[in-house]
Amino acid sequence: MYIGIDLGGTNIAAGIVDDDGRLIFSDSIPTLKERGYEEIVKDMASLCEKVACEGGCKMSDIKAIGIGSPGTIDNSRGMVVYSNNIKMHNAPVVAELQKYIDLPMNIENDANAAAYGEYIVYGEGVDSFVFVTLGTGVGGGVIIGGKIYRGFNGAGAELGHSSIVIDGKKCTCGKRGCLEMYASVTALIEQTKEAAAAHPESIMNKWIADNGKVSGRTAFECAKAGDETAVAVKKQYIRYVAEGISNIVNIFQPRTLVIGGGISKEGDELLAPIREFVYENDYNKYMPKTELKIARLLNGAGIVGAAMAAKNKS
Amino acid sequence: MYIGIDLGGTNIAAGIVDDDGRLIFSDSIPTLKERGYEEIVKDMASLCEKVACEGGCKMSDIKAIGIGSPGTIDNSRGMVVYSNNIKMHNAPVVAELQKYIDLPMNIENDANAAAYGEYIVYGEGVDSFVFVTLGTGVGGGVIIGGKIYRGFNGAGAELGHSSIVIDGKKCTCGKRGCLEMYASVTALIEQTKEAAAAHPESIMNKWIADNGKVSGRTAFECAKAGDETAVAVKKQYIRYVAEGISNIVNIFQPRTLVIGGGISKEGDELLAPIREFVYENDYNKYMPKTELKIARLLNGAGIVGAAMAAKNKS
Repeated sequence: MYIGIDLGGTNIAAGIVDDDGRLIFSDSIPTLKERGYEEIVKDMASLCEKVACEGGCKMSDIKAIGIGSPGTIDNSRGMVVYSNNIKMHNAPVVAELQKYIDLPMNIENDANAAAYGEYIVYGEGVDSFVFVTLGTGVGGGVIIGGKIYRGFNGAGAELGHSSIVIDGKKCTCGKRGCLEMYASVTALIEQTKEAAAAHPESIMNKWIADNGKVSGRTAFECAKAGDETAVAVKKQYIRYVAEGISNIVNIFQPRTLVIGGGISKEGDELLAPIREFVYENDYNKYMPKTELKIARLLNGAGIVGAAMAAKNKS
Repeated sequence: MYIGIDLGGTNIAAGIVDDDGRLIFSDSIPTLKERGYEEIVKDMASLCEKVACEGGCKMSDIKAIGIGSPGTIDNSRGMVVYSNNIKMHNAPVVAELQKYIDLPMNIENDANAAAYGEYIVYGEGVDSFVFVTLGTGVGGGVIIGGKIYRGFNGAGAELGHSSIVIDGKKCTCGKRGCLEMYASVTALIEQTKEAAAAHPESIMNKWIADNGKVSGRTAFECAKAGDETAVAVKKQYIRYVAEGISNIVNIFQPRTLVIGGGISKEGDELLAPIREFVYENDYNKYMPKTELKIARLLNGAGIVGAAMAAKNKS
């Protein structure tokens, strides 16, 4: 048995994962992210003991603990080098957690951990695997030859921070035109609001007034109801996502590319038009094509991936 | 000793390469690319024997032969699956060459072979290495953990076929906005011609009239002479290249990224502003940064890389 921890800006989630990567039991607590890392790690330790107990394990059954954290991670030193989200800078998270629990540990960037989780369920052994997550931001993870690709400095595979619009919108990372500024759920919400404001007569505008808020699902829901404004927002958003995925496919030609994040619940509504665009714009015209799929684990991916990366640490 | 063959649209170049990747002797013959692959391969065989002899080797000194070819390559079957440039489709180049020369052989995409050649001279052992070549097109090669990254189907690392301008210029590959359409020497020549025509009073326009033709060096030369039109062309071109390199750095965070192709002879005139833009737009703010360098081998990279890939075939 292994424990995987998914450290997020809102919650710390942890779970018991068996040797085959099945999530047996999980629970979560609030991160209270404004605290220092020492306090956060102390709560992580208590949560590990809680999920082990409630999941029917003893701590002595646990072989290793894996952590997925936002930010730039120094895997070899077990540190969060920098995270804007949870305000850590050179935080020795692994050493701190080992003060409470004496087990082998491993830490990965959260998107890399989620990518590894999807890799495990989608077929370990696939030689090249890419995961793109559409959430608050656009995250990515790349698994090559069974290993998480981190670049030489641990900061690699930032697939959301490639530009698709030269001199485009300013990203939080400082660069302009990043995929994240067009294909994240945050961007979709903004696109939805702008279109509703520009088309006060639309069903979508009325829907927003009735519901009081806009989510990533708003445009998809209103498009189903036949609203032209929503159809246009959905189409343009999917076009942005497809542009990014198409670029990634031409760069990596991975055997499998999996799309995750909340919006991936839309399934084929999202995936079918992306697949069409990606295949039409694939540089590779004569060899087998990348399989495009929707994530299977959703929120569990980070826990499973962190646990399995700790298991398979090399 | 090894032989490396660089099959190009204009010439077939081949050379003797020693165990350490030094090019000892090379020669070339015209490709006459409209011929069938059998004729081309027959000439490749003769060229191998010629360079061995004139390079002071016997064929029995040669341990393996490596080939770099344009197009999509099936490395495991030794085939050129498709090349638009030399009009090959499912051509069993390795098997055909082995009819003349009974030696172990290996075939790679030409940009991958050149990348491997630069990797050898720039420091074998570097864990992540990217090569971008700015020529007629924009080619790329990625070496991860000492191995050429080919994607699952052999068509990977097409770094010139990621878009930087959504809905931009139509590329020869079918996609719109590809880096190749803005950052290749072909694109630079077009940008130079357009600017000269728009500014008939410019030194650059006079220079073109005097010289009778435009090359990739025209804007760089006229910029040195202080022509404002040329300065603007050079600046914009470098901006396009930097946009692409910045994207690649955010994706791979390689230890070393090398820029090659004819225009790389401009050295620091090209590299310094690219480095400035890439570092300013690097997602990684806290860890060591990718080294950006100019190619060392230039035309020899394809020969050396093909030979060394044959040596290290795995």
